[in-house]
Amino acid sequence: MTPVRILSGAVSKFGELWDVSPRDLVKEVVQKALTEAGLTTSSIDGVFVGNMLAGTLGNQDHLGAFFSEELGIFRGSISVEGACASGGLAVHSGVMAILSELYHHVLVIGVEKMTDHKPEDVAKGLMGAGSSAERESGATFPSLYALMAVAHMEKYGTTEEQMAAVSVKNHFHASLNPNAQFHTPITIEQVMKSSCIASPLKLLDCSPITDGAAAIILSKNKTKNEISIIASSVETDTLGVAERESLTSLASSVHASKEAYAQAGIKPSDIDVAEVHDCFSIAEILAMEDLGFFQKGEAAEAIFEGKTKLGSKKLVVNTSGGLKASGHPVGATGVKQIVEIYEQLKGKAGKRQVDGAKIGLTHNVGGSGATAVIHILRRN
Amino acid sequence: MTPVRILSGAVSKFGELWDVSPRDLVKEVVQKALTEAGLTTSSIDGVFVGNMLAGTLGNQDHLGAFFSEELGIFRGSISVEGACASGGLAVHSGVMAILSELYHHVLVIGVEKMTDHKPEDVAKGLMGAGSSAERESGATFPSLYALMAVAHMEKYGTTEEQMAAVSVKNHFHASLNPNAQFHTPITIEQVMKSSCIASPLKLLDCSPITDGAAAIILSKNKTKNEISIIASSVETDTLGVAERESLTSLASSVHASKEAYAQAGIKPSDIDVAEVHDCFSIAEILAMEDLGFFQKGEAAEAIFEGKTKLGSKKLVVNTSGGLKASGHPVGATGVKQIVEIYEQLKGKAGKRQVDGAKIGLTHNVGGSGATAVIHILRRN
Repeated sequence: MTPVRILSGAVSKFGELWDVSPRDLVKEVVQKALTEAGLTTSSIDGVFVGNMLAGTLGNQDHLGAFFSEELGIFRGSISVEGACASGGLAVHSGVMAILSELYHHVLVIGVEKMTDHKPEDVAKGLMGAGSSAERESGATFPSLYALMAVAHMEKYGTTEEQMAAVSVKNHFHASLNPNAQFHTPITIEQVMKSSCIASPLKLLDCSPITDGAAAIILSKNKTKNEISIIASSVETDTLGVAERESLTSLASSVHASKEAYAQAGIKPSDIDVAEVHDCFSIAEILAMEDLGFFQKGEAAEAIFEGKTKLGSKKLVVNTSGGLKASGHPVGATGVKQIVEIYEQLKGKAGKRQVDGAKIGLTHNVGGSGATAVIHILRRN
Repeated sequence: MTPVRILSGAVSKFGELWDVSPRDLVKEVVQKALTEAGLTTSSIDGVFVGNMLAGTLGNQDHLGAFFSEELGIFRGSISVEGACASGGLAVHSGVMAILSELYHHVLVIGVEKMTDHKPEDVAKGLMGAGSSAERESGATFPSLYALMAVAHMEKYGTTEEQMAAVSVKNHFHASLNPNAQFHTPITIEQVMKSSCIASPLKLLDCSPITDGAAAIILSKNKTKNEISIIASSVETDTLGVAERESLTSLASSVHASKEAYAQAGIKPSDIDVAEVHDCFSIAEILAMEDLGFFQKGEAAEAIFEGKTKLGSKKLVVNTSGGLKASGHPVGATGVKQIVEIYEQLKGKAGKRQVDGAKIGLTHNVGGSGATAVIHILRRN
């Protein structure tokens, strides 16, 4: 794929932001992104917004025009939705926009305001990403990922302690990220003793409800020392887990990552740093295997041994803290992942910097794996 | 812009389709489109879905993956939303996808199932396209377009009879369209005597609530005698009408059409046939002027005199029957417009064929003008 340059990226504080509106969150990140890019709103000729729940929970659809008005950018604006992959799909759309040559400078926004609504309404809204059979049978996403965890434990001997190690690593990384929702390191014992949500998943195996926004600016302009997106792929699978051949692998992740490696002309072992979709601890284990970083059945022990933790010379995963500890404002997550890798490749990731990071990957999943979006970024 | 070829297009019956599901509607139009294109699902590597209300009214989000599963196309699938312009934005996304060279054969689907829900829920859902101030003050889209009608009447002397003539023309065209919701020609007297909805707009000035679906297949392959999209533009304006400089023109339509004419390298007078967004009769009058077909204040009388009716040698508008009489299944409308122009340029429009039509335009609006999407198609 022809590289698409990232001019800038910005993330808001993630967390329970009771006193901030979606408008404020978006204005904040867009202003930061414009300032870093040295641009004003008049240079932007396309806006892509990733969001899932504003229509369902807040009765506000038409978010492309909504945020264009808020920002004073009266140009082409499109809202993109694909459940928890909405942000990644908005980035993919922005990449298409630049490659199409219909747009010159594209702003991609991801935003979600979840804490303004009752938890039961949020849970119901989120199940809009699943199949009708799953909704009618009372399934929730923790229960669906719990099924995958049980299957993975049975097939590969994965343990609850190994899953807990995912959360421990990601909380440690988040403790170094000023914008993360949680800054407190946790232990495997704390995960194991936390409340059961859907056995074997416990509270500290699960990503939280989060408010937040992120933005990037993409450009066709080429310069030296740039950070570029060199692969952008989307693949899908059945909405419901019951219709799939395997519970221990997400076919969408496997296919999208193979396509992305081919677009970029690289191998999994070339990746220095990755942000993957750890909505639940088991999801990061599946991702490590599906993206080709480890053989099936070998990721859980590798994570437990710290092989993907900051300091590893091979591959560091979820330096932001991931969905688990940086937080998971649904539509913002896929854009935040890009910003995190962008900062890593720029060498601007502060205490969580991966030394010499040159190639990074993002992996954003919608629902229980019905959509997977992969981006690969490279520093030239 | 580099032309993007349309391989095929299909539309379902539009109307109150009580016994058909959105899945069935989509399967029907996609099967027709694949057959016409001589393709199977395995050739499609991207799916773009235009829909507004499935999440809000039906709790089903994630429609890209939803319809991909239904069709057995497990590739890149994205759902696009921009209120009543959702279909046009899905087409625009499909055009970007082909031009980006990330996709080879793209399926664009527009679908909406509105009659399964209570009218008051549909009305509330549709107001998700407007501003929060409009919602909170109890405004509805008929009332907002009524404000524009009053302003246009005051400024240009436009009459209720001239507005009625839009509906009369479009019902006549729909009487020749087997897939239209309404097949009964109406008179100006019938429009004038119909119930007042939001003065001066009466029932027969307003487009109906409709179920329906439409699909097109886009390709990068070039051949002779092809129909291509030669312009694709999106522009936005404020969500609320109160924030706009003018009530007698939609700035988004003006800007998007100028951009589209520049992309295509043509003038408004080159257009032989157009599908424009006549959600209300006044909207078609605004569109005729905003798209450059008539001077401001001159379109209403021209329409009244039949200058845009089938048989006109200069420009024929809304041969499908438009939103008014062919029906307005929100997310499907922008895709259906493309199919109608495609059939006109192919010479396959049956009794409503515009002789020798070579260049056509579609105009799809979201909300009360916050989003406008223009496409120009040409037969080579």
